[in-house]
Amino acid sequence: MSRFEANLRIPGPTPLPPSVREAGGRQMTNHRGPEFAVTLRRIVARMQPYFGTTGDVAILTCVGTGGLEATVVNTISPGDRVLAVTIGLFGDRVAQIASVYGADVTRLASEWGRVADPDDLRAHLEANPGYRAVFLTHNETSTGAINPIAEQAAVIRAVAPDALIIVDGVSGVGAVPFEMDRWGIDVVVTASQKAWMAAPGLAMIAVSERAWLAMDEVTTPRFYFDLRPHRESQVHGMTAWTPALAVVYQVDAGLELMAAEGAEAIFARHEVCAAATRAGLRALGFDLFADPAHFSPTVTAARVPDGLDWPSFRAAMEAGGVVLADGLGPLAGKVFRIGHLGSVTLGEILDAISVIEEVAIQFGLPVQAGAGVAAAQAAALDLRRGR
Amino acid sequence: MSRFEANLRIPGPTPLPPSVREAGGRQMTNHRGPEFAVTLRRIVARMQPYFGTTGDVAILTCVGTGGLEATVVNTISPGDRVLAVTIGLFGDRVAQIASVYGADVTRLASEWGRVADPDDLRAHLEANPGYRAVFLTHNETSTGAINPIAEQAAVIRAVAPDALIIVDGVSGVGAVPFEMDRWGIDVVVTASQKAWMAAPGLAMIAVSERAWLAMDEVTTPRFYFDLRPHRESQVHGMTAWTPALAVVYQVDAGLELMAAEGAEAIFARHEVCAAATRAGLRALGFDLFADPAHFSPTVTAARVPDGLDWPSFRAAMEAGGVVLADGLGPLAGKVFRIGHLGSVTLGEILDAISVIEEVAIQFGLPVQAGAGVAAAQAAALDLRRGR
Repeated sequence: MSRFEANLRIPGPTPLPPSVREAGGRQMTNHRGPEFAVTLRRIVARMQPYFGTTGDVAILTCVGTGGLEATVVNTISPGDRVLAVTIGLFGDRVAQIASVYGADVTRLASEWGRVADPDDLRAHLEANPGYRAVFLTHNETSTGAINPIAEQAAVIRAVAPDALIIVDGVSGVGAVPFEMDRWGIDVVVTASQKAWMAAPGLAMIAVSERAWLAMDEVTTPRFYFDLRPHRESQVHGMTAWTPALAVVYQVDAGLELMAAEGAEAIFARHEVCAAATRAGLRALGFDLFADPAHFSPTVTAARVPDGLDWPSFRAAMEAGGVVLADGLGPLAGKVFRIGHLGSVTLGEILDAISVIEEVAIQFGLPVQAGAGVAAAQAAALDLRRGR
Repeated sequence: MSRFEANLRIPGPTPLPPSVREAGGRQMTNHRGPEFAVTLRRIVARMQPYFGTTGDVAILTCVGTGGLEATVVNTISPGDRVLAVTIGLFGDRVAQIASVYGADVTRLASEWGRVADPDDLRAHLEANPGYRAVFLTHNETSTGAINPIAEQAAVIRAVAPDALIIVDGVSGVGAVPFEMDRWGIDVVVTASQKAWMAAPGLAMIAVSERAWLAMDEVTTPRFYFDLRPHRESQVHGMTAWTPALAVVYQVDAGLELMAAEGAEAIFARHEVCAAATRAGLRALGFDLFADPAHFSPTVTAARVPDGLDWPSFRAAMEAGGVVLADGLGPLAGKVFRIGHLGSVTLGEILDAISVIEEVAIQFGLPVQAGAGVAAAQAAALDLRRGR
């Protein structure tokens, strides 16, 4: 099937809406000038509610992994005891970064696909006092599971009140409700190519007053990712270093669309697209990977059926115009992933399910034509009607 | 004077040609897919000659300061003795980064505006053996001076053959001839928003085999900026982390234009625009800041005349449609800077000089109408005709 543009259904980079594409093609301006200051302030003001904070949001030129590194090097000194609550590849990555920078890292790891049980977390913290920080993943992009972050944060605040709570919110914030200040979370990072519908290149990091105060005590060497010069510069409407201007324009354009749609509608759209994706895949006989009690609203992972050659299946999907994401790390070839975050509509999910149906039939899977799209549509409408 | 688009004459971000703007507005694709691999390989192959290398060029998502940090953390261990040859703000920044990461940094500083004399460098190295690395700035954006880097590298290779030579080539490479392999330079960094005519967001780092070998011994903690995963990923046509895709597209489009123009023509265009800028400013009575023997082909700094209020002058320039750059650090308010790199034509320089003339007359400077543009034009034509 030929088409004019692929349906990019990976969990970031997400597709760019037309006005965001236009913004990416704008002419450069002076990043130390008054126009840029207006843009930067507008971005921060519009992002704060998605983090659920009234505090600072630093805008760094890097991708998510750089943002994760920034959360580590600004909060942890060599030798500090930290707890890395890991539920997948990106949780492991944060733990690895903290280890590289000399932290004394304990991993509280869940089986991939599951989340971290708040009771297990409570028991661990009670038995192991003295952590300087606890790292959590909000939405684990590698498994399609979303942590019950409010409950987890409440446990940490209660049992280990002195620990900083640091959250990888890369693939969740902006698409899923988040209440950093209310939940007592100290540092949250997200990235431009996820819910924000822009190209990769910016990480946005929200920081609590408690974390800003803690930062001056941190001895880990840092320069580019030192958040303090960013805070100081942003007071003057500038970034500490030259920003990725084209991506700044795009994030600004994405936030303009988000302001028009409204946060509640955005969150509901993600839930609808996620429910449709899951129902469609299940109706086609695919097993979903994550714990059903904690399915992610932004990315779904499904198991590759026994005997199916995933690279061939993926290539056939791409020939049909739909780009899916591979499994990562130990899940390579064992799961595939569908992104439904940022710029995503029910129609695009139905399109993806339709091509999966067609390719599944080509590959001899026991699939009934129409079953996937019908189930996806029914799940979406059920949800829209309030179930 | 109104106009449709400002003449952005700062030394980066540089103006984007139309095809580069179009590239910045492209739809996202899978950065782990075959199309991206083709693009990445084409970019590296087209950049290598500008570095003067047949070796690897790592593409990192960050701006120039991040690229500088990458050159430090991959080559220097805490306690290593390094020589920072500084001729301005960006040389100082590298020295600062090396200090932050625990290097034992000696600064060999020249007066701002001057370059580092190769004989002084030789004498210093002879008197102070044992440096692990020497950091040099190719083109100092803060002062408009360009180091005689080939001579300096030859001195280092002769006197301190074991020292790594690490060059900040951010605002020079791509606009000025550079022969990394021939000169025996180990690491060179540049950035997308300079000669490459793209938005900020990518740093490109060329690395010698000697430096790759040395890297495994380096104990400085690093993760996002560790160059080794980048080398490994690029073998497979990928970047280590998600790249700033829109900027990758733009750099690719910029290199397409550069391939059509040819390196010799590009270098000559920069020399012509630089000569015109200098002649125009001088004819208007401005004193140039840098040592005339080492004027930069990419950026010119001029002194703010006594009694002139620079912020007012700059604002009047911007009202006239021409954006100039402030002096940096200790030169704030004392010099202003004109960028002539990347996308720049003689016509744009004449336009800038024309508006400077007009504003200078408004501000009561003793300027003769037409003198600046006439001198600029004459200097350019002299150079084009071979003087």
